Amino acid sequence: MNLVLSLKSFNEPEWIDRLQALLPNRKIEGWNGGVAEPEKAEYLLAWKPDPAAFSALPNLKVIFSLGAGVDHLTSLPELPKLPLVRIVDPDLTSRMTEWVVFQTLLHHRQHLTYAAQQEAGVWNGHRQWAAKDVRVGILGLGELGLDSAKALKALGFNVAGWSRTPKDVAGIESFSGEDKLEPFLNRTDILVNLLPSTPATHKLVNAERLAMLPHTGALGGPVYINAGRGATQDEAAIDAALTSGQLKGASLDVFAIEPLVEASPLWQQKNCIITPHVAAESDPQALSEYVAQQIKGFERGDALENLVDLDVGY
Amino acid sequence: MNLVLSLKSFNEPEWIDRLQALLPNRKIEGWNGGVAEPEKAEYLLAWKPDPAAFSALPNLKVIFSLGAGVDHLTSLPELPKLPLVRIVDPDLTSRMTEWVVFQTLLHHRQHLTYAAQQEAGVWNGHRQWAAKDVRVGILGLGELGLDSAKALKALGFNVAGWSRTPKDVAGIESFSGEDKLEPFLNRTDILVNLLPSTPATHKLVNAERLAMLPHTGALGGPVYINAGRGATQDEAAIDAALTSGQLKGASLDVFAIEPLVEASPLWQQKNCIITPHVAAESDPQALSEYVAQQIKGFERGDALENLVDLDVGY
Repeated sequence: MNLVLSLKSFNEPEWIDRLQALLPNRKIEGWNGGVAEPEKAEYLLAWKPDPAAFSALPNLKVIFSLGAGVDHLTSLPELPKLPLVRIVDPDLTSRMTEWVVFQTLLHHRQHLTYAAQQEAGVWNGHRQWAAKDVRVGILGLGELGLDSAKALKALGFNVAGWSRTPKDVAGIESFSGEDKLEPFLNRTDILVNLLPSTPATHKLVNAERLAMLPHTGALGGPVYINAGRGATQDEAAIDAALTSGQLKGASLDVFAIEPLVEASPLWQQKNCIITPHVAAESDPQALSEYVAQQIKGFERGDALENLVDLDVGY
Repeated sequence: MNLVLSLKSFNEPEWIDRLQALLPNRKIEGWNGGVAEPEKAEYLLAWKPDPAAFSALPNLKVIFSLGAGVDHLTSLPELPKLPLVRIVDPDLTSRMTEWVVFQTLLHHRQHLTYAAQQEAGVWNGHRQWAAKDVRVGILGLGELGLDSAKALKALGFNVAGWSRTPKDVAGIESFSGEDKLEPFLNRTDILVNLLPSTPATHKLVNAERLAMLPHTGALGGPVYINAGRGATQDEAAIDAALTSGQLKGASLDVFAIEPLVEASPLWQQKNCIITPHVAAESDPQALSEYVAQQIKGFERGDALENLVDLDVGY
């Protein structure tokens, strides 16, 4: 019945206090090369955990990932075949949608052009295309992708989505499967990447795929936005596409190595917005309540929610 | 049955061609100190028109304003007491909402902080408050204000509105009348000005009103956004409030004198976004169709839509 935490770069004592208040009748410990009662630990809450914890805790029943992404766990060969629960939090989804809508509007409304003009004291209006004439394409139609798609649709954009398995969403053209990736990219002016990181999505957004984005749209050139996972993109290809003009702009919140290395040429790319993996940080209290509720429900015999399919990696 | 155009700083020949295609059986002329058949002119399409046109066209029946704002007409003492129709165009409304949502998110998501960090090559996340903890207040709940209010509400913001007359909108707290302006401002973290320009709204956003915005909100200080009319704000007061820190940020698309004069200190204000009156420029074809449809309907005996109440000025 006990809960162990292995949370890299989180404030673990604060998380223990919050969870202890919600689960007063069980022992909650941080993993520190070991715990006091390893055989009583049934739950592990993990973020980039120490893999040694898996074999040292013989009676684990459920592993919780402290985040929507689970690649920090699925990439570990030591991960036991146990139910793996990921965070699905309405607050996290709203924050992600905010960031995606904001960055889409930033490029759509020519903000970088107007910001440069303001700095030079120049008053000069530019032709503004309508949202309905801009084709947004969402890579990944899970909880996050769908919410962003709906918000962008509500603002008038022409929205389509691509996912591994077919999805049926009113008002949103849906592409699925690898053979539909090219026609999806061919009709996309603003590409929003919200893919999970799995072996199948590794560097999926590469030079070849970026070259499939058209230059025929209202914006005059495609824009690439990533708030998902850095591992799903080829950063050198994005940099080259920005330099060549194949990409008109980009907004990147995630990178293969974070913090983004000082030497990355992306820092200096004109028309590229960089934010330090802040698109969607969730409220610690909301996440703690989610974990506590799932544990209580599991012990009552309820099914676990938001289980990861370990075969596909999300 | 003829239509005369008096359109300052528009491409008048293009407008004549577009309207002629929609209204093939009548003469459409640009005002140029006079027209060929003044007594046959029944309609005037105007943007900052030559006031001499009013008395020179004795049989005018309807005046159309080429824009949502009509202060360019109502401020003219020569304006005859005729039906005055303003533009209400879904495309214009969508564009205005886009700009308002974009600027709201820009301040909410701390863009200027992250842009400065990117320029310095700094990777550093900042605490992000949730949209539900940000109180947006819309000054002016007409077509434009309501549409912005609904879009911001859909993104999770806590939205209220203020208008001269009471409005009842689901999910949006409504304040009305001059005595409710202070309590409205007292609960507003991001103030969005979409007021029409009338004698009653002249410099309504002044130092005294800006001082009513609280410093107790999630943002740490209030933000002021104006996409309505420059005449409704005191620019010196906005500049002083940005300098003192009473305002944490601003986004201004409109000014008392446009283009904004080179000497304005607002150009250089940190945390102040300036755009050159581009929030909502509508599609000329859509506006031409609107005018042509109203003329045809009027001649069939239909009521004119979107008539201005000359007593209140909008």
